[in-house]
Amino acid sequence: MDMMEVLFAMAVILALARLGSIIFAKLGLPGLIGEILVGVLIANVAGGAFMTDVLNIDVMEPNENYEVLEVLAELGVIFLLFSVGLETKVKDLLGSGKAAFLCAVLGVILPFIAGFALILALGDYSTNAAMFMGAAMVATSVGITARIIKDMKLMDAKESRIIIAAAVIDDVLGMVVLAIVQGMAVSDDINMVDLAIIIFKAVAFVLTAIAIAKWVVPKIHDFFDERNRKIVAAGKVPYSFNKLVLSIIVCLSMAYLAEYIGLAAIIGAFLAGMMFANYAWEWELEHKIEAITSFLISFFFVNVGLQVDLSTMTEVSVLIIAGIVIVLALLTKYIGCGVGARLGDKTVDKSSMNIIGVGMMPRGEVGIIIAAIGLASGVMSVDLYGVVVLMSVATTIIAPPILSSLFKKKYKEEYTIVPEDNL
Amino acid sequence: MDMMEVLFAMAVILALARLGSIIFAKLGLPGLIGEILVGVLIANVAGGAFMTDVLNIDVMEPNENYEVLEVLAELGVIFLLFSVGLETKVKDLLGSGKAAFLCAVLGVILPFIAGFALILALGDYSTNAAMFMGAAMVATSVGITARIIKDMKLMDAKESRIIIAAAVIDDVLGMVVLAIVQGMAVSDDINMVDLAIIIFKAVAFVLTAIAIAKWVVPKIHDFFDERNRKIVAAGKVPYSFNKLVLSIIVCLSMAYLAEYIGLAAIIGAFLAGMMFANYAWEWELEHKIEAITSFLISFFFVNVGLQVDLSTMTEVSVLIIAGIVIVLALLTKYIGCGVGARLGDKTVDKSSMNIIGVGMMPRGEVGIIIAAIGLASGVMSVDLYGVVVLMSVATTIIAPPILSSLFKKKYKEEYTIVPEDNL
Repeated sequence: MDMMEVLFAMAVILALARLGSIIFAKLGLPGLIGEILVGVLIANVAGGAFMTDVLNIDVMEPNENYEVLEVLAELGVIFLLFSVGLETKVKDLLGSGKAAFLCAVLGVILPFIAGFALILALGDYSTNAAMFMGAAMVATSVGITARIIKDMKLMDAKESRIIIAAAVIDDVLGMVVLAIVQGMAVSDDINMVDLAIIIFKAVAFVLTAIAIAKWVVPKIHDFFDERNRKIVAAGKVPYSFNKLVLSIIVCLSMAYLAEYIGLAAIIGAFLAGMMFANYAWEWELEHKIEAITSFLISFFFVNVGLQVDLSTMTEVSVLIIAGIVIVLALLTKYIGCGVGARLGDKTVDKSSMNIIGVGMMPRGEVGIIIAAIGLASGVMSVDLYGVVVLMSVATTIIAPPILSSLFKKKYKEEYTIVPEDNL
Repeated sequence: MDMMEVLFAMAVILALARLGSIIFAKLGLPGLIGEILVGVLIANVAGGAFMTDVLNIDVMEPNENYEVLEVLAELGVIFLLFSVGLETKVKDLLGSGKAAFLCAVLGVILPFIAGFALILALGDYSTNAAMFMGAAMVATSVGITARIIKDMKLMDAKESRIIIAAAVIDDVLGMVVLAIVQGMAVSDDINMVDLAIIIFKAVAFVLTAIAIAKWVVPKIHDFFDERNRKIVAAGKVPYSFNKLVLSIIVCLSMAYLAEYIGLAAIIGAFLAGMMFANYAWEWELEHKIEAITSFLISFFFVNVGLQVDLSTMTEVSVLIIAGIVIVLALLTKYIGCGVGARLGDKTVDKSSMNIIGVGMMPRGEVGIIIAAIGLASGVMSVDLYGVVVLMSVATTIIAPPILSSLFKKKYKEEYTIVPEDNL
């Protein structure tokens, strides 16, 4: 590996991402869309020559430089979800519980059925391929919505809390759906015991983390607080731990644990953030984690764009399927999540339903990851994979401007803060 | 590449580094030594089985996981030097100019002659090998001293400014020496034109950066300041740039440029920091860059330790040579730098000479890098390479506790801040 090349690629990508972000912010659109489009441009201008020859990055057959970029991107989204977790207190999450739960459940069922039924109805694809399409349409990528909520400083809004909580449940359900689909594709026969184990692991992980955040962390905090008070009372200076690195260790460990039991790393990072939420202010964690996120997150958004190969998007029939899939992906989340939230909480009015439905639309990288698994296991064809990529990018690009304008409309009185082009 | 493995290795390394740091801080020693020793332990316990089998890191034949770790380590030391630069204003650097310059020059000449003469006198090695040993003894690793200065919040002390400025000049001279030695080893004949070009490039790079920091950056700052004032006066809200990411782009670009012209990346990062030094407070850069450094720097120190293979350190004759080299490495920097600083600035008294001489002792990774180049080009033997590694680690371990106790002695009245175990 050549560190000089890595430094060059990092500097160029960060600078272009910033440029894209600034242009979109000037147009009144979320900067992150500009960053994703910068990625698409880098990957497709002159057939990707700029990417492969100038930046020496190979997305198709990942070379060392691209692997470094992938790690930075993954760390970026891990730190983003960690900082979202830092602002999510357990009692707030549980407070929006029923609405978030129904929002997530309906927001998983509707897209899955729609994707499955459409591909089956076309007649050209296998039942397994149809199931993978359904699974790829399930998982909301909360990273993108979370960024908008953070940018607009609306973490305390009721809709934000429901979206974030629903996205956590949605992620867990999405992983369960993926596990089922994968299991069926491999064995042509679903093993109920394995399935039960997967569901149990996922639910146990989330509930354990919430229990630790609610009961264990405060005890540890108070123990050291009491100890330090005694040391000070004895006229000595207490040892000052580096809380930032401590919290990062917990974040990385939880991200690892989540992957270890088969969930996405970002679920672990988010739950780790929740564990520190009550002390984020006291330990000055928020600004510090935000600084790290600021540095790394652009690599994530640019990488989402880098994976789009426009040259595979030329056949008319594929584009028509893609168009239908995109409309279904938008509508099913919009209806499922909005109605679900309303069913769970009667105070969710029409404007809140709109915000929640739109906020849950972006699929981002999760859908692409699921499609990639389908492609690798030979179940999904290359054209369907392309459709999923297009759907993920389209939902990710379409939802943010609508979401921010809905938020602005609802919170226009409070919304007086100048939006920065980044965190 | 397996992100799960990377997350696992990162979490374990960070946690062990923190443990090492805390133990050493409790003993009253700088935490970074604990972090380096953690690296040595990881690499050598059970013949490296923990490192290769549990962490899946291969230092000898770098695998993907180790390459990721190397990038994080390199970014860590880049951000460390960037944050040191942020606290080094151009006028302060030029203010300690003559003392720093003579300190650096004598601190380069003496170690080079000593290393060269010793290896030649032994009779068993080539002239080229002797020259590489001299070159490996030249370069001070300012990262380690800088960390101590930052930990003790003594950036404003006269000695600190001389050490930092001298380390920059020392780095430039060290690279020039390496370039000469490499050129001679390859061609057995030194090309004066190439040499002149290398020296010119290095000096021009540093002077250009200083000129930009002194004259160009303030103009840009004032231009945007004036523009924003007008926008505010017109009743509009000025666009708020993300200064943190902007400064990181400049930092990475300068690090790349430095490597591009044949200098170390950290020189570029340091000079980039200097460019923003006057506005670091206004733009809240220091704390944000410090947070990023906190996250990444442990990977650097652990990596220094990871490269030590204790099994090569068993022959008695090699250990004797190593012992002599270590003593010479310590003494020549101590005398050369102390006397040099005194010659340049009569107000540098005996206690200041001690601090400066000791502060310039650590060779850290720079000597190891030079020895690795000698090993790769077939000029240096494996045993001499081992000697350089031992020398680098020993100087890095020996200097910090002496330096911090000298600093404490001199600044005991002002030194009332509790040292954290990390930045």
